[in-house]
Amino acid sequence: MATQIASSGKLQTGLAARRFIRNGGYVGPTSGFAPGFVQANLAILPRSVADDFKRFCELNPKPCPLVGVAQPGDWQIPALGHDLDIRTDLPRYRVWRDGALVDEPHEIRKWWRDDLVAFAIGCSFSFEQALTEDGIEVRHITCNCTVPMYRTSIPTVPAGIFHGPLVVSMRPFTPADAIRAIEITSRYPSAHGAPVHIGKPELLGIADLAGPDYGDPVPIGENEIPVFWACGVTPQAAIAVARPEFCITHHPGAMLVTDRRISEFATG
Amino acid sequence: MATQIASSGKLQTGLAARRFIRNGGYVGPTSGFAPGFVQANLAILPRSVADDFKRFCELNPKPCPLVGVAQPGDWQIPALGHDLDIRTDLPRYRVWRDGALVDEPHEIRKWWRDDLVAFAIGCSFSFEQALTEDGIEVRHITCNCTVPMYRTSIPTVPAGIFHGPLVVSMRPFTPADAIRAIEITSRYPSAHGAPVHIGKPELLGIADLAGPDYGDPVPIGENEIPVFWACGVTPQAAIAVARPEFCITHHPGAMLVTDRRISEFATG
Repeated sequence: MATQIASSGKLQTGLAARRFIRNGGYVGPTSGFAPGFVQANLAILPRSVADDFKRFCELNPKPCPLVGVAQPGDWQIPALGHDLDIRTDLPRYRVWRDGALVDEPHEIRKWWRDDLVAFAIGCSFSFEQALTEDGIEVRHITCNCTVPMYRTSIPTVPAGIFHGPLVVSMRPFTPADAIRAIEITSRYPSAHGAPVHIGKPELLGIADLAGPDYGDPVPIGENEIPVFWACGVTPQAAIAVARPEFCITHHPGAMLVTDRRISEFATG
Repeated sequence: MATQIASSGKLQTGLAARRFIRNGGYVGPTSGFAPGFVQANLAILPRSVADDFKRFCELNPKPCPLVGVAQPGDWQIPALGHDLDIRTDLPRYRVWRDGALVDEPHEIRKWWRDDLVAFAIGCSFSFEQALTEDGIEVRHITCNCTVPMYRTSIPTVPAGIFHGPLVVSMRPFTPADAIRAIEITSRYPSAHGAPVHIGKPELLGIADLAGPDYGDPVPIGENEIPVFWACGVTPQAAIAVARPEFCITHHPGAMLVTDRRISEFATG
């Protein structure tokens, strides 16, 4: 459905996508919306723990590349877009109290508090688009499923109440495509950048690639090797461990679509 | 010995290295000479086959990155250095007739002909220096031996009389270092650039990593994966197949030291 909407040609900019979501009651995924524009994970936390969370992101830039932080109580992030309201512009949210899910609304105006700080964290949609444009097959896109994700034995660098394992996403490639994928994704540090690992899942404490902790398993060809990127689920896992008294995140796949072009964030 | 000479501080530029070689009768390897300056493989061929060889290099840029070509009969390559005489400035040469080695002199003035065309081809010394400066261990340097090289089942793109297999060099790394090595070497296309393969040597037709076709075997740790770069021995293998009536190459390890800085050739 998202693809059909996107290909209708009406959602070619971040602003158009946000207004469509805000006004249309759309609650699905944003994959395919506003091609060429950065999409972001959202985490909203009370001011009392926001400094810790910001430091957690800064200390773990590969899983948690901050692309925007709002002022306390502010629902705008001017650096990411004009006419942007993080309370209404994502298709669906998750509201947490003391680590327990209490609501999955399509807008969060009634949940808003003056002490909330919104964080936008880069996501892999950006680099996957760059890979696809280079002619590289991205398996979970071919399979029309969610990328497989795994909790690793690698700890993140803790900050205050936030800590937990590095979570990685996995995409299998032929060796030549793996090399090309490393070259390409290293240009997008704000979308997790270069992989953190290649081959040998056992070194990450992953026992079975066919049994991901999040997302769906994907087939891996005999001539392919698994390539692992730091994943935006990492900060969510850290929030789950920290159990702050209140917290709002995006619903998986329902991202913040920004006005910033992917190319603006590319290096090299 | 090369390291001792280099660390004496007298050979800090390409010009100083060439003059030392030209005047001192040094016949050893140039590894460690003029740090930061590009070193190159040398191939000298009669004009009758030079166009074919140039095309072979252009069609196979990863194993044969041309960094300089002389005018027919000329022993200078102004683009690579001032006061540069390719007949005297390499420590040692190999002279071939109809594919057979006929001499290994320390200078080739007596072999010079007016129809000879000299080709300088980038070599891996440049990217190995970049890896070492980044703190990445390069195994054959640690082991003080020659990098292991393998003939693969991958054919080069033929041009005239020149054809043959792609030859690769192998360096083992931990997954994290392998990713970093790919990022770094992709910035040096004139020194073979990014690897051509990672993991799974059998896909290149390599049956046994412990039995390289050229150079020395190196130990590979259990937590390491082999990474393969296109190798400057590829054009030599193509020349060996072509058996031109006359040809001169550098002696392995005894390279042309140029005045061009490695950083000049870096991209990104």
